[in-house]
Amino acid sequence: MKTGLHFLIAAKRCEIAELQELTQTSALVRVTARLVHGLQRERGLSNLFLASPNGHWQPELDEQVAACVAMQQELLDGFGSMDIEPRLGQGARLFSRVAYVMQGLDALPALRQQVRTRAWTPQRATQAYIRLINGLLAVVFEAADSAGDPDISRRLVALFNFMQGKELAGQERASGAAAFGSGRADAATQQHLLHLIDSQERCLQVFADFASDDLMRAWQQAQQADTLAGLERLRRVICTAAPGQVLDTGQTQKWFDACTARMDGMKGVEDRLADELQGLCAQRQELARGELAVLERMLVASATAARAAQRSLSFFEDNAVTTLPPSAPAPPTWATPLDRSILDLVQEQARRLQTVSDELDTVRASLNERKLIERAKGLLMAHRHLGEEAAHKTMRQMAMNQNKRLVEVAEAVLAMADVLPSARP
Amino acid sequence: MKTGLHFLIAAKRCEIAELQELTQTSALVRVTARLVHGLQRERGLSNLFLASPNGHWQPELDEQVAACVAMQQELLDGFGSMDIEPRLGQGARLFSRVAYVMQGLDALPALRQQVRTRAWTPQRATQAYIRLINGLLAVVFEAADSAGDPDISRRLVALFNFMQGKELAGQERASGAAAFGSGRADAATQQHLLHLIDSQERCLQVFADFASDDLMRAWQQAQQADTLAGLERLRRVICTAAPGQVLDTGQTQKWFDACTARMDGMKGVEDRLADELQGLCAQRQELARGELAVLERMLVASATAARAAQRSLSFFEDNAVTTLPPSAPAPPTWATPLDRSILDLVQEQARRLQTVSDELDTVRASLNERKLIERAKGLLMAHRHLGEEAAHKTMRQMAMNQNKRLVEVAEAVLAMADVLPSARP
Repeated sequence: MKTGLHFLIAAKRCEIAELQELTQTSALVRVTARLVHGLQRERGLSNLFLASPNGHWQPELDEQVAACVAMQQELLDGFGSMDIEPRLGQGARLFSRVAYVMQGLDALPALRQQVRTRAWTPQRATQAYIRLINGLLAVVFEAADSAGDPDISRRLVALFNFMQGKELAGQERASGAAAFGSGRADAATQQHLLHLIDSQERCLQVFADFASDDLMRAWQQAQQADTLAGLERLRRVICTAAPGQVLDTGQTQKWFDACTARMDGMKGVEDRLADELQGLCAQRQELARGELAVLERMLVASATAARAAQRSLSFFEDNAVTTLPPSAPAPPTWATPLDRSILDLVQEQARRLQTVSDELDTVRASLNERKLIERAKGLLMAHRHLGEEAAHKTMRQMAMNQNKRLVEVAEAVLAMADVLPSARP
Repeated sequence: MKTGLHFLIAAKRCEIAELQELTQTSALVRVTARLVHGLQRERGLSNLFLASPNGHWQPELDEQVAACVAMQQELLDGFGSMDIEPRLGQGARLFSRVAYVMQGLDALPALRQQVRTRAWTPQRATQAYIRLINGLLAVVFEAADSAGDPDISRRLVALFNFMQGKELAGQERASGAAAFGSGRADAATQQHLLHLIDSQERCLQVFADFASDDLMRAWQQAQQADTLAGLERLRRVICTAAPGQVLDTGQTQKWFDACTARMDGMKGVEDRLADELQGLCAQRQELARGELAVLERMLVASATAARAAQRSLSFFEDNAVTTLPPSAPAPPTWATPLDRSILDLVQEQARRLQTVSDELDTVRASLNERKLIERAKGLLMAHRHLGEEAAHKTMRQMAMNQNKRLVEVAEAVLAMADVLPSARP
């Protein structure tokens, strides 16, 4: 015969299982972040290679490809050791993301072949790398979306947005490298760069909203003033070049180095974020295990006494919490509550879960912006028969023309959904 | 060495595990709904018993208590056979709700004792039953909030709102029975009844938004015109009684019967909803198992051939989906896709998950209203040091005074959260 206490213990064990899972996912996120960083550099070097005369940048590119092959193997090993037994929760989504990205990794040698033989333009190669990296970032996104602990979720959201910001910085490096390398920057390139800079800043703002004070300090230290000033100067050179004006290809190296210094600094912050995340997961697990031990002692100690006590009317008293209990200050960590009634514990747990749920809603709101944008893009693709890049470009253009945030444009697009003819059967 | 196909299979197995879990939860929801119906009747009879001269309604109440004891045992057996092994997903929340409601069920004999000895007023007994029933409904709410299949989620949201509407109808029956039984209805009772009628209609509107056409027809048939007309007449008698006016206690039985006929009709619809839900879970499971079998055959058949084929550049082609793929028409059910590439399957799966996620967001928006209301209530409790009932009453009053929906008042209260002094440490 199970009692309320049995279910309280079962709930605590679920919490622990989820924290274990988050610990493993965090480790995987770390390896993913490393490969993303490597591929970003490989993309930048590929752009330099493709935009420059034959032979230039090839040794650097070859070296980076070799490094990426090793990192890729590390990630594949990580995927290989994932527990893929059927599970509840976000398992189906996470595994689908992994399946997707594994296809991309399989196709990577073919992509490198296109670059090596100069069969593709810098733009086309860049798009291919972006797609692969987006697939890797989507794995991190699923992890952020699945965490049930608000503090852990906050860290994951900060990390995801930081990685996203860094990826936009990487796209900026690639576009700028192609521009300097080829000696020209047309209006479209200039506009694209401005958009990348703007989007980066928005991602970093979300990071700032959710990161710990420690991390914010680390990020401020990583942004060295002189590197930043050099980068800003080069940004100005590209973005203000008049039509037909020739860029100094000698600046290519400087551009690449300034962008790379910035991204390497970001990688350091990213690593610290990942450390913090793993530390937090471990700490939460320890706490939950302590609470579980208390509950299990109660089960042994007070099986009969507690049952008599709980048959009281206190359940119906007005200070008791009800079904969807309100937010309330988090209770202090359990001391030695063997003398407390199970009802107290049940109510405390209910209150705590509610607080957690409220906080999670707040944290996840920032993930929803991304979902809105993707959904609006999907709508445009379906109704205007656009490809994905074209749909994204359309929305970006709308945002720039109307001086709005991308998410505001997305909301406007989705609001029109009802008046558009349906593409669904 | 795991491939993308392994993860696709793992994702499909997760889907099946979730559907199995939903099937079991749906069965539990059914038993819960039965006990809720029994307790609603017990509450109504308790009110008649407490409001009437000694001895009246006692046989009916005793009979109903005996019936409820049997139903309670059935639910406890259901809880007893739940798999409480640690799991990911909403396990911690669901188990906590069960722990909470088991405390309430333990306290039920003490509540009945208070009624039987006439120690409590009808109002106090009603509040106690409401709290217990809310605890049971919260179990259904968790189930609705955890379903990952939009069609199943839609049914669960319809069911939860229908149960909530029926519970409000039950509260109306109890309040009206106490009024007719005591021969008087004061202004507060009248206002409370009007509010219950209004809230019922809102819940039934959400039900109408999410229920299937079949269920809507069943619900229209269940509402017999003559019963409804009789109920509306009695509602008018209570709600328009002048201050001090004596109500005809002889109408008590008519009121109770009219309300009971309505609620029994609702119970029939509720049962059909539960049937539909269980049928849908079974159907979805069968479909997913078929898809799994196809994937498993692919794994055996094309291990080597597929790997060669997928090392192509098609991953990077523009018609391929990307990380957070857009909504698109659901693909037709898989025929014999042994000839199709794994990449197609991966992309189809990614597309499907995205469609599912979009639809889920829509369905769950209706659950969020309830969360907002509870959160606002919690804020009022913390900042004005109110009890739960008082906080709810305050918001209800604000809604009535401002002629707004409760959720709009909740949003206004939450918007003020930042300017209120913080109660948190």
